[in-house]
Amino acid sequence: MAQRCEDLGERRLVRRIAEILGISERDDCAMVEDGEDYLVWTTDMLHRRADFPDIATGWQIGWMAAAVNLSDVAAMGAAPTGLLSAAGIPPETELEYVEEIFAGMKDCARRFGTRVLGGDLDSSDELTLVGTALGRVERNRVLRRRGARPGDLLCTTGTLGAAGAGLRVALEAEGKGIGSDPGLIALTRRLLEPFPRLEEGRALALSGAATSMMDNSDGLVLSLYELAEASGVGFLLQEEKIPIDPLVALVAEDRDDALDLALTAGGDFELIFTLRPEMIGEAARACRLAVIGEVTAEGVRLQSAGGTEDLKPRGYEHLRSPEG
Amino acid sequence: MAQRCEDLGERRLVRRIAEILGISERDDCAMVEDGEDYLVWTTDMLHRRADFPDIATGWQIGWMAAAVNLSDVAAMGAAPTGLLSAAGIPPETELEYVEEIFAGMKDCARRFGTRVLGGDLDSSDELTLVGTALGRVERNRVLRRRGARPGDLLCTTGTLGAAGAGLRVALEAEGKGIGSDPGLIALTRRLLEPFPRLEEGRALALSGAATSMMDNSDGLVLSLYELAEASGVGFLLQEEKIPIDPLVALVAEDRDDALDLALTAGGDFELIFTLRPEMIGEAARACRLAVIGEVTAEGVRLQSAGGTEDLKPRGYEHLRSPEG
Repeated sequence: MAQRCEDLGERRLVRRIAEILGISERDDCAMVEDGEDYLVWTTDMLHRRADFPDIATGWQIGWMAAAVNLSDVAAMGAAPTGLLSAAGIPPETELEYVEEIFAGMKDCARRFGTRVLGGDLDSSDELTLVGTALGRVERNRVLRRRGARPGDLLCTTGTLGAAGAGLRVALEAEGKGIGSDPGLIALTRRLLEPFPRLEEGRALALSGAATSMMDNSDGLVLSLYELAEASGVGFLLQEEKIPIDPLVALVAEDRDDALDLALTAGGDFELIFTLRPEMIGEAARACRLAVIGEVTAEGVRLQSAGGTEDLKPRGYEHLRSPEG
Repeated sequence: MAQRCEDLGERRLVRRIAEILGISERDDCAMVEDGEDYLVWTTDMLHRRADFPDIATGWQIGWMAAAVNLSDVAAMGAAPTGLLSAAGIPPETELEYVEEIFAGMKDCARRFGTRVLGGDLDSSDELTLVGTALGRVERNRVLRRRGARPGDLLCTTGTLGAAGAGLRVALEAEGKGIGSDPGLIALTRRLLEPFPRLEEGRALALSGAATSMMDNSDGLVLSLYELAEASGVGFLLQEEKIPIDPLVALVAEDRDDALDLALTAGGDFELIFTLRPEMIGEAARACRLAVIGEVTAEGVRLQSAGGTEDLKPRGYEHLRSPEG
């Protein structure tokens, strides 16, 4: 029988396509030389059903479409130049809803110092938004997934798990609404209105302290597997150093469940990066960060009071059949 | 009752969204200043059912996804820097078909001197390809939709109508195959394997002869309405000068039908441009061209042996309900 995409899953299919296209390295953005700079350049496709819970507003969907692309620009240490947006819209969609989407996109772009410059409109059975972002970074400052070395410190911006907890709240709220609890509402905002870490990414790039970087959009552990592969290294996470977002406690069953959200849930859009230990001062002046572990020779492991365990590459993957 | 997107149709909806985003001018690409150059930048969304006839192969779909974006780069007089591709793929799609798509994309990019540098993969109910192209053109050479002046000559590259005729062949062939007639096969190739006019666009920009330009992807007449609006002018087409592709005769019922295909069918991806009359020599040395009319003060009209008539803005438009 012919092999189907769902038999491979997203990551292996991406690898196969990269082979066909002759793309040997994978970063959050593609890079194009431009004098002393790199132009960095990314695109992300979002679908109404797979990528957004029912409770997402049009404005939030637009914000997200801009934010996910800007997060990729941030992950290279670049400053954003602009956004384009291709939108596939079901013809029966209410105009007001579409207006909201583009207002959200505009507001996110503005909030982070850039603009939506153009795009394309198509009709589609399912609402589909494809953003593209362009950015710029000095060639000697760019941060890539490759570059981490054993002995480097492993760090993250911000806190982890809030977006995953927000997704639980959102799924729970389906059909009955979210209610008025400010904590729960805050959690869904963390899921649906992420802040791309553009300032942090840029400051880290200029600091010269970081050796590799990417965003954690598919969850911390999957991101670490990507970083590990690109850099040819491993990671040892320290459980007690994982900065679980305080809001996670509102929905987590217990400490283990909260930790699981922080390790594997996608959507936080924080930056994961590695540092030369002697540069920790420079990095800490560039942005608020948490040291969560260190770079090792191989494996992705978690050290806790009970010992050290291998972490499985669990997280969000597209194009995977349920049994796959 | 709330207003729906299909009540507006694509062009009015695009205008409304441009208002929200604060985009005042519309060209084939967005423009970003980069030293003495503009980076030009475009995105196009294609869906399996709406944008491709059944007979399109995976390779042709991939070629098209690259070509439509490169055509927008050509229309600005720019040289391409690279492509990105976001693909929404139904999980049950055969791997081989997906491999073909990306091979087609790669081959088109290579044929026109550029590369696919990266992208995004998502699962989708319907196969959806969103390409993005980046290019570069000197700021004093860029060609835009604005710039045509009354008295300028109106020109096109290549010949017109073959893609429209190819679509007829393709629709006719549905369910029974296309057969072995080389002329009919050639017509479907003109539809499904368009050549973006990158060399011609670039040479015209460098010649300094052209005053405005765009591609004719939605058909000649609709493109002229866009050029007319952007430049604040009109056009008078000369019927006997329209370069109807010789292959069109294979499917056209009569001369009027052939002319209609040349005027209103989309998909030829030729460049429509205006010239200062005294620069016709420079333009003709830049590329093969046909002078098809002239720039006037207003209206889009066709002059033929029988007199002069207004041309209605007919052509391909997305997001339009059948009765709209």
